[in-house]
Amino acid sequence: MIKRKGILFVLSGPSGVGKGTVKEALLETMDDICLSISATTRKPRSNEVQSKDYFFVDLKEFQEMISKDQLLEWAQVYSNWYGTPRDYVLDHLQKGCDVLLEIDIQGAMQVKNKMSDAVFIFLAPPDLDELARRLCSRGEDSQESIDLRLATCEAEMAHIKYYNYVVENNHVKEALEKVRSIIQAERCSVNNIIVG
Amino acid sequence: MIKRKGILFVLSGPSGVGKGTVKEALLETMDDICLSISATTRKPRSNEVQSKDYFFVDLKEFQEMISKDQLLEWAQVYSNWYGTPRDYVLDHLQKGCDVLLEIDIQGAMQVKNKMSDAVFIFLAPPDLDELARRLCSRGEDSQESIDLRLATCEAEMAHIKYYNYVVENNHVKEALEKVRSIIQAERCSVNNIIVG
Repeated sequence: MIKRKGILFVLSGPSGVGKGTVKEALLETMDDICLSISATTRKPRSNEVQSKDYFFVDLKEFQEMISKDQLLEWAQVYSNWYGTPRDYVLDHLQKGCDVLLEIDIQGAMQVKNKMSDAVFIFLAPPDLDELARRLCSRGEDSQESIDLRLATCEAEMAHIKYYNYVVENNHVKEALEKVRSIIQAERCSVNNIIVG
Repeated sequence: MIKRKGILFVLSGPSGVGKGTVKEALLETMDDICLSISATTRKPRSNEVQSKDYFFVDLKEFQEMISKDQLLEWAQVYSNWYGTPRDYVLDHLQKGCDVLLEIDIQGAMQVKNKMSDAVFIFLAPPDLDELARRLCSRGEDSQESIDLRLATCEAEMAHIKYYNYVVENNHVKEALEKVRSIIQAERCSVNNIIVG
């Protein structure tokens, strides 16, 4: 009696907030949502599979995807380019499958311009002190880089108003439950159902 | 860092769909949502407590509540009047508490006019045949009354577009989980949070 459209869920938030961890936990516990696959100009690592881990393309192909508006968002990270192919996402949505995209805030803002009916979830740090502790304990970043990230995070919090939901990542388990609830609720949203 | 407003959840749907059962199950499993208390001109039963089960008022008081716009909705059922006192709901929302209101569709439409930022959940029957079976098995209604209810239900389904969510009540446990997810998700909604 009630059918529904596929929904694009964009999980985003400041660097270091734990997006990747929540995403992994989500995919482990939900088998009815699929992960968006990025295109990249980066060379595949030995364990990476074409069209599964990434769509590996060369720079010319990547630039062609940009010029043909085939990417929902893209960014250059050092000498490599990364982007989200539009067709992969649209094909899955059309089939009624939900798609999860884990992405930084700049990327999410690009996606919002092209897919305004996607559901945007902002994963927020409990507070900046806690984020600083996490970045330090990760041990990947210099103090200068950590200071920059904290300042960026503070600025990025101003983007919350462009999102549909905010989930504070105090504990991964609780954040996971909240994101799962959001996915479940959106599947019941009148915006996403087709009464027939 | 993130605070939020109290949210009014309106659980509604056609007669016989199982609103009461889902409501009871919800209150049993969630202790952080409180039930709206109705005003009524009906006489209290021996086990009913004033201001707990109902606000028992006389007809003059009830009509004064209507004329002073103190009811979010009201209806006459045979010789008795029932309504939802606005202040009780607003006082709880102001304190940051969520309030649950279980109500028929006509009532929900009245509430929507007065509380447009409430969250409206439509509990839908899996299909009309199943609803007919439920109404019959309840044994409370004549065939004529059941036929009328089914016709009414079909008409009422047209109101779904005024709701935020639709939950099909195939199985109480699944419907309950969906309504819980909706409550949890709305608590994370950017519309309901105050970033400070």
